[in-house]
Amino acid sequence: MSKFGMNVKFTAKEGQRDALAQILLGAAAVAEGVPDCEKYIISVSDTEPDVIWVYEIWSNAEAHQASLDQEASKASIRQAMPLIAGVESCQIRPVGGKGL
Amino acid sequence: MSKFGMNVKFTAKEGQRDALAQILLGAAAVAEGVPDCEKYIISVSDTEPDVIWVYEIWSNAEAHQASLDQEASKASIRQAMPLIAGVESCQIRPVGGKGL
Repeated sequence: MSKFGMNVKFTAKEGQRDALAQILLGAAAVAEGVPDCEKYIISVSDTEPDVIWVYEIWSNAEAHQASLDQEASKASIRQAMPLIAGVESCQIRPVGGKGL
Repeated sequence: MSKFGMNVKFTAKEGQRDALAQILLGAAAVAEGVPDCEKYIISVSDTEPDVIWVYEIWSNAEAHQASLDQEASKASIRQAMPLIAGVESCQIRPVGGKGL
């Protein structure tokens, strides 16, 4: 079964980037306990001050979908929504490389 | 010192995605021997057939810059250039998460 990934660019409302990053880091902390979640990495941009990138790799697509149905995920999304101005989300399929 | 990342979207010329992916996987194999390169992950897109994503994390920005000056990197770039229709490159600064 193929691994499954998401490469997501969040644009926070002005001044809300760091608050949004904290919520996403909280979601990453929950992901520590989910074996099928292999990576959930939060990055900021030094060139786009409102932008946060989340890079997720899951052992399969079903595990990712199942995570969205968890109450902890729904709570994070509810917390995050008011801070978000935009989302661009790309589904990816990792094929190899270092650190995969 | 902050970690340094690049999130790069390559669009291959039509029919050239898999050939370009092989070149990038070769660059990732070289990166295996570079301790300051922590991740160099190649992904494709099932929704955009010509797209390849490369996700790089380096222990610092200087190590990334130094890698570009290596002959192996220059050779990969020369090989890849004729296969590439477009590149969108975002510099990122990883701040935390799972699998970082």
